[in-house]
Amino acid sequence: MILHNAVIVTMDSESRVFQNGAVFIDEDKIKAIGQSPDVLQLFSPLAGEILDLHGQILLPGFINTHVHTSQQLGRGIADDVDLMTWLHHRIWPYESTMTEEDSYISTLLCGIELIHSGVTCFAEAGGQHVSGMARAVELLGLRACLTESIMDSGEGLPSSWGMRTTDDCIESQKMLYEKHHNTADGRIRVWLGIRQVMNSTDRLLLETRDAARELKTGIHMHVAEIPYENQVVMDTRKVDHGTVTFLDKIDFLQDNLLAAHTVWVNDTEIGFLSRAGVKVSHCPASAMRMLGFARIREMLNAGISVSLGTDGAPSNNRMSIVDEMYLASLINKGREVYAKGMTDPTALPAETVLKMVTINGAKSVLWDNEIGSLEVGKKADMVVVNPVSWCMVPVHDCISNLVYCMRTENVVSVICNGQWIMKDKKILNVDEEEVISLAKQASSKLLRRAGIKILSRMNVL
Amino acid sequence: MILHNAVIVTMDSESRVFQNGAVFIDEDKIKAIGQSPDVLQLFSPLAGEILDLHGQILLPGFINTHVHTSQQLGRGIADDVDLMTWLHHRIWPYESTMTEEDSYISTLLCGIELIHSGVTCFAEAGGQHVSGMARAVELLGLRACLTESIMDSGEGLPSSWGMRTTDDCIESQKMLYEKHHNTADGRIRVWLGIRQVMNSTDRLLLETRDAARELKTGIHMHVAEIPYENQVVMDTRKVDHGTVTFLDKIDFLQDNLLAAHTVWVNDTEIGFLSRAGVKVSHCPASAMRMLGFARIREMLNAGISVSLGTDGAPSNNRMSIVDEMYLASLINKGREVYAKGMTDPTALPAETVLKMVTINGAKSVLWDNEIGSLEVGKKADMVVVNPVSWCMVPVHDCISNLVYCMRTENVVSVICNGQWIMKDKKILNVDEEEVISLAKQASSKLLRRAGIKILSRMNVL
Repeated sequence: MILHNAVIVTMDSESRVFQNGAVFIDEDKIKAIGQSPDVLQLFSPLAGEILDLHGQILLPGFINTHVHTSQQLGRGIADDVDLMTWLHHRIWPYESTMTEEDSYISTLLCGIELIHSGVTCFAEAGGQHVSGMARAVELLGLRACLTESIMDSGEGLPSSWGMRTTDDCIESQKMLYEKHHNTADGRIRVWLGIRQVMNSTDRLLLETRDAARELKTGIHMHVAEIPYENQVVMDTRKVDHGTVTFLDKIDFLQDNLLAAHTVWVNDTEIGFLSRAGVKVSHCPASAMRMLGFARIREMLNAGISVSLGTDGAPSNNRMSIVDEMYLASLINKGREVYAKGMTDPTALPAETVLKMVTINGAKSVLWDNEIGSLEVGKKADMVVVNPVSWCMVPVHDCISNLVYCMRTENVVSVICNGQWIMKDKKILNVDEEEVISLAKQASSKLLRRAGIKILSRMNVL
Repeated sequence: MILHNAVIVTMDSESRVFQNGAVFIDEDKIKAIGQSPDVLQLFSPLAGEILDLHGQILLPGFINTHVHTSQQLGRGIADDVDLMTWLHHRIWPYESTMTEEDSYISTLLCGIELIHSGVTCFAEAGGQHVSGMARAVELLGLRACLTESIMDSGEGLPSSWGMRTTDDCIESQKMLYEKHHNTADGRIRVWLGIRQVMNSTDRLLLETRDAARELKTGIHMHVAEIPYENQVVMDTRKVDHGTVTFLDKIDFLQDNLLAAHTVWVNDTEIGFLSRAGVKVSHCPASAMRMLGFARIREMLNAGISVSLGTDGAPSNNRMSIVDEMYLASLINKGREVYAKGMTDPTALPAETVLKMVTINGAKSVLWDNEIGSLEVGKKADMVVVNPVSWCMVPVHDCISNLVYCMRTENVVSVICNGQWIMKDKKILNVDEEEVISLAKQASSKLLRRAGIKILSRMNVL
């Protein structure tokens, strides 16, 4: 297939943009990319389909590096409540009650939202029933690193979960790896999970590190989310700062660790992360709501690969990486007011934000040899954006319009692994309306089983 | 016309929500509102049209209380640049070069974006060529308070503007009032403008105050935007804090003043604003990018009517009040981290944010006797939202989903002054594609005339 007459933003190491570009896709891979006339001349005879994109923008598929697909049915169950209510009375009862079928439906609904926002690959933050997720991802046609929610200690957990031993945790993940890793034409990988340090014994951390090394896969973990976490770590783990200092001390920090949020870190800890090659997933919306301002400028300056994530629906509630780009740019400009007395409108410029959702995302999920930029030999994961719309014109600066103006409605079509998964706004592999209907039913039942009641905010008649 | 079978969020003083509600519209006004069966039984015989909304949500039209319609053609001309470049090398050359036709086209494009985000009424922040704006607003079918950009002093202004005398400024606005106030079936009102204190003599401020009183209209002014402004006011106007202290001292603060941004105010100044009944327009996106964190919680606690604005396209760049709701909720939760050491997820709850874009907006534009809530006797300004979509389901908490999940794509139809201005996503009174085409041409020419060049961020081939 040839796609031509497109503005191609390659995100390659030379930051090339073809104003009238074309790409030749063979099976699941990019075989050629360049000026339209050149590609058409050379590859038209080999192409089964030649599609004129009429000046639309072609980009690498976006990568969402922190999303709780299991939480999609819980959108709206924990808005405007304090953190302890959020966790103990909403999220834990919700997650501990869900079935594998709930997880499947939740991931389907979440996946639809991800595709509509131009995502071709995501990293599951650690959720319930990986087999349910995998079934949904395979069907949707997405690429994903799936991770189980893993805890072997901690207080106040729902009784229905029971307490899993460290061995159970490692064993369960190895089985999931065995069953699902490298399935769905190689689109699914299985990662190891650590929910967070307060729910992990030292042994779990170290055995997870070793298992990841043995399986050659990544570890996804929530890191340094709130000051309380750092305080608990200082009190119980006998270190002088917080989670990152502790993880460095036990030699847990490695270049296959994807640290989500990572808000409460000091300069020394940024140094630890940088030296170990740890990747950081910045989730602007949930940071604003629950956690605080991550030190993104400092982490980027230290050479850390920072990418973007949406977090889960009860923390955000938009699972839109497009909106996270907009948010990341805004809050990181605004944050400077506290350092400098003024916001810095030049902080985190558009081209940096675009890197975060493409090539940095690919590095974060340890997949940059195949995705994250449009280059010969890489997988054909790409998104078509229509800029000729009331919300994007005039286009004086294409890159900045992509970051600051684009909305999900501008995302027209999405290709993953060489296959269309959305075309002209239509999701191809599942019936959207059917999933919406299933999700409404499943979520109502789940909330009832979990005993979660949402009070009305207004005078409903 | 009767609209029935809708979830009606009235935003009235009792916060009534009808789960299966109906509204009877006669000409430009709401004649009845209540339970569907009741309204249908009483008013069906009088209705020319009866429309089943199939459970969609009906809300008061949103009010955007600070938007530069003249700046829409300048979207993307000043991204990621420092404030002085923004003002002196981009915005002033742009605005001082535009023609009345540019202003007309700019307002058309901006208006289309406003309608798509559910806005029925806006307050122009002070722009170029009010007659051009008025022509566009009349055509689009929107409601607006139009304001000229007014300055009678200040350094570094473009030579093409020349310096208008105080008398010119007042006279010009009185003529615009005479010509356009209460036109377009009463949808257009003309307000008086003050661009900002550093471009105003004391005489301009006082005569504007008196003229507004005489004409019974409002004043729209940028207030306390950056620390530098306060510093200049302290140095030149001999007060001990900033703009608000100075405006209080000269008796300028009145209940017909709409103060935009109002970021850099202390407790005493919040007290001044509150006592005088001044309204504040909070613009979250542009605040993050250019200004800083406004003290919204404190202002709301002091009883100030705070509403939401998008600001202009070169400051934001999304003219979406829907996104501003999401942003307002997030950044005001996040801001608490600097006061309390933790974000406060309970700050600025959804119902408060929804008030800001409806009834508070109406109070801010001095029009709450006719708009801002759905009540018998008020104007029929309303928006239809489709919640059965991948980005809003499940709907466990309708009010919070409207604020945290809704995107512009959920805004289906808009009625202003009893007339459909968008139906099933189609703008009715202008041809969208034609406006987009006009805007592309006009903006390119305008940038060329103004000598504004945007450098490429990437390696364009």
